[in-house]
Formats: sequence, structure tokens, C-alpha cells
Amino acid sequence: MSALPPALVSLIALLGKLPGIGPRSAERLGLHLMQTETAQVEVLAQKMVEARHRVCSCQNCGALTEDQPCRICRDDSRDTSLLCLVEKPTDILSLEKSGMFKGRFHVLGGKISPINGVEPADLRIRELEERLGPEQVREVVIALPSDVEGDATSYYLARLLRVHGVLVSRIAQGLPAGAGLEFADELTLSRALEGRRELQ
Amino acid sequence: MSALPPALVSLIALLGKLPGIGPRSAERLGLHLMQTETAQVEVLAQKMVEARHRVCSCQNCGALTEDQPCRICRDDSRDTSLLCLVEKPTDILSLEKSGMFKGRFHVLGGKISPINGVEPADLRIRELEERLGPEQVREVVIALPSDVEGDATSYYLARLLRVHGVLVSRIAQGLPAGAGLEFADELTLSRALEGRRELQ
Repeated sequence: MSALPPALVSLIALLGKLPGIGPRSAERLGLHLMQTETAQVEVLAQKMVEARHRVCSCQNCGALTEDQPCRICRDDSRDTSLLCLVEKPTDILSLEKSGMFKGRFHVLGGKISPINGVEPADLRIRELEERLGPEQVREVVIALPSDVEGDATSYYLARLLRVHGVLVSRIAQGLPAGAGLEFADELTLSRALEGRRELQ
Repeated sequence: MSALPPALVSLIALLGKLPGIGPRSAERLGLHLMQTETAQVEVLAQKMVEARHRVCSCQNCGALTEDQPCRICRDDSRDTSLLCLVEKPTDILSLEKSGMFKGRFHVLGGKISPINGVEPADLRIRELEERLGPEQVREVVIALPSDVEGDATSYYLARLLRVHGVLVSRIAQGLPAGAGLEFADELTLSRALEGRRELQ
């Protein structure tokens, strides 16, 4: 029998389902909340629900947004002829942090994976094709993960998109910045070699 | 300018204030919540507020509880003559998990610490003294941390409690279970030596 009050036990169980929160962190968080002022706990709970209600997917690109279309799709200074294809809405944040991409994005919503029952029809591929003409897309930059499913999805899309007359590229694979060769696996090294570029 | 919607940015800021949640975990949690069904987010928020409203401190011992007095103080099978003194309500959970202590608890609510402005009057010492008679306490087992403030508080309380005619003990300090000598610092080893016991 646990020494914890039942209401706290059920809160800890829910907290433990969040990503990166193990049983011990969940207990620690739960206990912390019980020792926090009630008003502060209420603010946190309210912000959580409020954010979830306000934030939705951009109907155009699939990014997380409070407005339709999202800030990036509305931004006239962006190069609409460049479209970067990502797996998840959060991938957009990673690319935006790099500050290097000035085009728009399109969230695919997954990778083709027959084992997990994910078919091309489950992904936002038709929505992608429908954007190519109106937005006058010249190049689709595929930024899917460099795993087996990411590779398969990239090849599938490359074949499909070329029919529309757009250039299809994929972001480079190679050594992560700041990493020594001793930390890179063989596949990374062989791809880094394949993708070598002449120094000017 | 962040690519995140403002409602999410303010949620992430709040999540980042929780213990053990750094900026990256806070972002990850926030993004996870935005991609979770609204109903589930509402349940989590509601459980959080509900638990905080229900859980309070036991008026007798200071443990976290939904009832007055708490389950441990109500438990007749416990040895009321043994009282274990701890710093925080959560310390009770750690001791209960060991399953070795069959008495009751008393939460001190801190340690004497002149640097941090914590005086004996700020702690639940009077409440402790008031329990000694009615509960016929014979022994107070001090289970405060083995740091400087824990030591000072233990000595202060030992002197105070002996006046009431109770035995005052302190839990042993020594090698943690399963640890080799190479991982123990000098202070731990010197205390382990001091506390050595004859093998039968």
C-alpha cells in the first residue's frame, strides 16, 4: 500500500506517460506540485488547456499555429518556389533555428512504413501536390530522417514529384558539426564520403 | 522571433520552472501536449488541480494526506512510542519504501540554518514537543540529512528532547548498500568507521 494520497498517485501515473518522464521524475513532479501554491498549479493547468485549444495545424503546411494560415505561409518575404518537406511539425522548429532556409515548409505527417501500416495515402502527399502549382514551387527539399523509412519515403516522393516537373533534393548526410570520426558509425561515414564536395 | 505559437511559448516557460525540467525537456513536453488529444490534456490539467486541492498536510505529523489525520497517524498497529523525525514530507515515502520502520513520523519542515534565516521557531518543533506526552513517545529517531545543517539541527534537538525524558537516536551513516570503498568520500568512511558494530 502506497504512502501517497490516491489523488496524487493518479496524477503521478498520468505524468509518467509524458515523453522523457520516467516513474521517478513523475513522482518528483507530482510531489513538487503538491508543495506548490494552489494558485500556481491552477495557472499551469489552465495554460496547458488554453494552449492546446488555441494551437492547431496550419491548413496549408501543417505547422503548429494559432492562426490560419501560419506565420510562415503568410510571410511574403519567403521564397515560395522552395518547399521543404518534413516529417513532423516540430521539425520545422529545428530548421528555423538554423536560420538557413528561406522557403516554406510542408509537413508530411509521417513516413511510409508498411510494417506500421502507414501507406502513402495516410500522409499529406495529395496536399503537397496541390500546393506545387498555385505556389509555383520549383524545388522540393526533402528533410526526412536518414533512416530506412525516411530513405524509402524520399525515393517514393522523388519519383512522384518529378512528374510535376519540380526539382527534388534531399538534405546532406554526413558528419555532425563538431564531431570526430571516432564517434561516427560506418553508415554515416560512407554517406559522408559519397557526399564529398570539392574544396574551392 | 520564435516559430512557436505564443500560447505554447508561455506554456513551455511554465513547464521549464518545474524541477528537473530543463529548457529542452520543457519544449519537448509542450510540443507533445499540442499533439495530444485535447480531452487528454484536459484530464491531466484537471487531475493536477484536483490533487493539489485534495492533498494537504496532516495536522498531527505533517505528512501529505487527503484525510485528517493521515493514514499513518490513524494506523493502530503502529508503535506510537517510536517517532521518526524527518525534514520533508517526501522523506516519509523513502522510509516507508524500506518497510523497516513501524513507528510514526514527524515532519520538521526544514533544518536550522542561520545563513538562510531558518531559526528553530520556524520549524515544527513545538508541535513535536506537544506530541511526546499524549502519544507516550519513548524514542525519537532523527532521520535528517547528514549535512552540516542536518548535524546542527540533530544536536540541537537531541539536547532539547532529552529534557522530556525521551531517548534520542539518529539513523546510521556509512557505506551505501552495494557500494565499494573506492566510491566513498573520506567523511563517509570516517563515519562508517566510527559507527562500526561487532559481528556476532
